[in-house]
Amino acid sequence: MTVPPLTRIVQALPDTVPFVAPETLERRSGIRIRARVGANESSFGPSPKVIRAMQDAAHSVWQYGDPEMLELRAALAAQLGVPLPSIVVGEGIDGLHGLIARLLIEPEDVAVTSLGAYPTFNYHVAGFGGRLVAIPYTADDREDLGALAAAARRERAKVVYLSNPDNPMGSWWDRSNLQQFLDSVPEDTLVLLDEAYSETAPAEALPPLLPLRPNLLRTRTFSKAYGLAGMRVGYAIGDPGMIRAFDKVRNHFGVTRLSQLAAVEALKDDDYLRKVVAQVADGRGRLAAIAADNGLAALPSATNFVAIDCGRDGTFAMRVLEQLAARGVFIRKPMAPRLDRCIRISVGRPEELDVVAEELPKALREAL
Amino acid sequence: MTVPPLTRIVQALPDTVPFVAPETLERRSGIRIRARVGANESSFGPSPKVIRAMQDAAHSVWQYGDPEMLELRAALAAQLGVPLPSIVVGEGIDGLHGLIARLLIEPEDVAVTSLGAYPTFNYHVAGFGGRLVAIPYTADDREDLGALAAAARRERAKVVYLSNPDNPMGSWWDRSNLQQFLDSVPEDTLVLLDEAYSETAPAEALPPLLPLRPNLLRTRTFSKAYGLAGMRVGYAIGDPGMIRAFDKVRNHFGVTRLSQLAAVEALKDDDYLRKVVAQVADGRGRLAAIAADNGLAALPSATNFVAIDCGRDGTFAMRVLEQLAARGVFIRKPMAPRLDRCIRISVGRPEELDVVAEELPKALREAL
Repeated sequence: MTVPPLTRIVQALPDTVPFVAPETLERRSGIRIRARVGANESSFGPSPKVIRAMQDAAHSVWQYGDPEMLELRAALAAQLGVPLPSIVVGEGIDGLHGLIARLLIEPEDVAVTSLGAYPTFNYHVAGFGGRLVAIPYTADDREDLGALAAAARRERAKVVYLSNPDNPMGSWWDRSNLQQFLDSVPEDTLVLLDEAYSETAPAEALPPLLPLRPNLLRTRTFSKAYGLAGMRVGYAIGDPGMIRAFDKVRNHFGVTRLSQLAAVEALKDDDYLRKVVAQVADGRGRLAAIAADNGLAALPSATNFVAIDCGRDGTFAMRVLEQLAARGVFIRKPMAPRLDRCIRISVGRPEELDVVAEELPKALREAL
Repeated sequence: MTVPPLTRIVQALPDTVPFVAPETLERRSGIRIRARVGANESSFGPSPKVIRAMQDAAHSVWQYGDPEMLELRAALAAQLGVPLPSIVVGEGIDGLHGLIARLLIEPEDVAVTSLGAYPTFNYHVAGFGGRLVAIPYTADDREDLGALAAAARRERAKVVYLSNPDNPMGSWWDRSNLQQFLDSVPEDTLVLLDEAYSETAPAEALPPLLPLRPNLLRTRTFSKAYGLAGMRVGYAIGDPGMIRAFDKVRNHFGVTRLSQLAAVEALKDDDYLRKVVAQVADGRGRLAAIAADNGLAALPSATNFVAIDCGRDGTFAMRVLEQLAARGVFIRKPMAPRLDRCIRISVGRPEELDVVAEELPKALREAL
């Protein structure tokens, strides 16, 4: 007797998962992580006011959270200056990616992305039977706007994914380039603009939110600068017609009560956000200096991480990652051709970057 | 310019959502809810130890939760006496329902359920293009095991849903009836046995967990007796071959860090669980007495709510619900034919049931 037959799409899916977690790596290796600088979390943590609000509300979690998430959506709408019906909140951008793929992708439909871009988007596209077309990055490690738009047109893509600022390279495009890109994507292709790192980005990297474009959906998150990765709150901003569709498929009660409350409080503490953004900028400088001390080049970054060019090929950079892991430094690295020469280090707290500064020279030596 | 075309399945979906939340009702009516006894939440709250653990860990939420949820799954496996690979954790049973529908349902595939059973299951089946076959309850307000199994055979159903104890009626079947039901469902139909109310159920209502059956998946939750509805933690127990499939489609980081930790702590505090279960039993007795005081009959219940037969038709019972709502008492009611003669009241705290006792006679008078 075997289990009942799964759908044809599911049967064809591989067993791979988008990310192996630091907890899993620790369990496998038995090596304690001393610097958790691989998942672009914010080691600075959430605002103390957010922590206090969560503590004060911990007794109330017997109640389901508001499935309309009205308070949070209203706070976002007010802060961003966009209409309430243009915002949907979900269980992190990852959760929203799953819903977006479900809303748009039928088997064999095409999604365009960059070769080496965010794997969870790819996971969800494949999960609904879609076909991925992946465009190599430009020679200066940016997503190739012209080629992405051309592929969207050529493939009659249902969706084209762009992260700006980019993960994993940290690069970004400015408004005028983005505007040109948006204008060159067909109207019936959704542009999924992932702005997970918007808070640390320069203003020039963020096109105006208004007017809303019917074929543009922008995703943002409380997981990065707001320090709430573990609470799973992401949101998307788009045309109300598109946003309404999420209500037909989402897990209405899926965002926890404490997550909603934490996000609302986080939005109120602008001073703390500014402080974190400044600390992140300092940390990027520190990582660039650490790279330089080791004869390596740090790539410019508008995010809370820095890609460091290890100066050789992908095999070498992978050995550097492994040597760092053996020393309790958890990082990740790009895997696509050419990008794979780099390692990616998140801006941790100063004491974590001390560990990086101490261990990187040894790792580089051992990797040779 | 319109939004890009959605999938054919999504385009055909209605705009309805499974539940209107108490927050929404409050916003619409402007009437403050004095007794929140409509969503089968546990007003007794989670264990004080769980609250303290969440408060102590609030600072750590900048870290993503463990996507493998190993600590929680190991604690569940130990407590339930089942193998670790037979457990998957998700964002509430609702979240798991979405994944189960996705794993099994292709367009036009059939899911069998009871007419008036849990609407979120129906929502997800429809959400993947499935066709629902709904079987009326028996004359004594139980799900009709024989007719459900017969429909599964006749329709070559991909999944048959059974909640035991039942929501919304509170009724239950014993092990031998359930065993007979399981034996009469085809091997290639998944039995989705929803045991959200297992903690308040008599032992006779819960078939042994072992041996695992390849076509049986049982769902349970921390939302009810454990008092963690707002934290979204549900789990399913099944054949490891079936459980593995969830990893191909789930939102791996979707369960929050605090939710995982709260669930682990909740499992440790058996004394508190026993206390809540006793309070729930008292509350059911109190609700039965309130019903009797008003000349109404409470149905037997193995859950944390009681269905009360209002003695007339569905229109009358709906007026009772509306009259209670106007008095700040939030309840829900079954809507299917014949079941709709009832209202459903969750076991709230004694002071909430005082409000019910005070307002029900007035509501009944006004509803006449």
